[in-house]
Amino acid sequence: MKLKKCFLSVISAAILFFAGCKTAEERVVVLEKEDVKRVAVLVGEGFHDGEAYMPMGFLANRGIKVTVIGPERGEVKAYNSDFTIKIEKAVSEVSVDDFDALILPGGHAPSVLRDIDEVVAFARDFYKSGKPTAAICHGPQILITAGVMEGKSCTAVGSVEDELVAAGANFLDQSVVVDGNLITSRVPRDLNDFSRAIYDAL
Amino acid sequence: MKLKKCFLSVISAAILFFAGCKTAEERVVVLEKEDVKRVAVLVGEGFHDGEAYMPMGFLANRGIKVTVIGPERGEVKAYNSDFTIKIEKAVSEVSVDDFDALILPGGHAPSVLRDIDEVVAFARDFYKSGKPTAAICHGPQILITAGVMEGKSCTAVGSVEDELVAAGANFLDQSVVVDGNLITSRVPRDLNDFSRAIYDAL
Repeated sequence: MKLKKCFLSVISAAILFFAGCKTAEERVVVLEKEDVKRVAVLVGEGFHDGEAYMPMGFLANRGIKVTVIGPERGEVKAYNSDFTIKIEKAVSEVSVDDFDALILPGGHAPSVLRDIDEVVAFARDFYKSGKPTAAICHGPQILITAGVMEGKSCTAVGSVEDELVAAGANFLDQSVVVDGNLITSRVPRDLNDFSRAIYDAL
Repeated sequence: MKLKKCFLSVISAAILFFAGCKTAEERVVVLEKEDVKRVAVLVGEGFHDGEAYMPMGFLANRGIKVTVIGPERGEVKAYNSDFTIKIEKAVSEVSVDDFDALILPGGHAPSVLRDIDEVVAFARDFYKSGKPTAAICHGPQILITAGVMEGKSCTAVGSVEDELVAAGANFLDQSVVVDGNLITSRVPRDLNDFSRAIYDAL
């Protein structure tokens, strides 16, 4: 009888031992998920170097975990310099739930990304989830294709104005426009206001 | 006798349980320390926005943990835009052992930082440790004051050339110069080569 009790105690302790380990590891994961805000930056070949990296640096400096996503994993090149960026996760590998905000930098990349259904669907779903969705320069082109700009106040680089108006948006010429969960800016010189607006929305 | 054995078994299992938990937590810490490279960016009031944030974004995108350090904790403003940066740790709170590389961005900040003995001593100790020490634009001024530039090949923004030559350095006009653990660049348009050289040196 005593032996049986002893055996049970040891088994219980062993279970506690393994359960204890798991709890400790899980706690770390949970802490990371709950305390750290997560932002995705959506890029492709021909991204604008500063429009991707400046908000990334700004947010990382404030404790935000930034993940670069794109059509597929790998290194893509900027259109305006030799900078490359590492796409850490393909859009197919992530879900809206993984992030607290989405950033769409400009450059030539948006004109490529808007032709990829899966990418456009992700941007649409993200925007419709109500979480901050930020686009700068040519970035709003992806949201035009996603069909979510009608009736929205926004801005972008001047050359996208006509397309935004045709999509039913209200175009404003200012460094940053916040309309609900939509954050838009025009060009690289607006990057400070753009980055701050994203941070404030988190 | 059986009871004693049983008691010992339970105690041992309990110790294993707590040790197990600790090991799991420690493993996470150890993983972070060993697997993640850590880079410090030294800034002060009047830092150059892109020269700080672009390498930060570039390195963060490649899994490097970046910490912004400076004379004291707090928010400082860029000299060339409205960007601010958060000094996460004062120089007095960190040691050379905490980081695998040090970056000294330019702007007006280096001319302020070179007058602060503790900051200069940290840069000197860091450089002398043999770990990658990278400076761009006016950043090398801190290393001149630290007295470590004699005989070194380097570059910087043109206006610092005379001072570098007077300090016994060999000035080269190229986007990035790597001499031992010293990495230097000239101006913002060199930021890609500068960031890559730092990453390659880690």
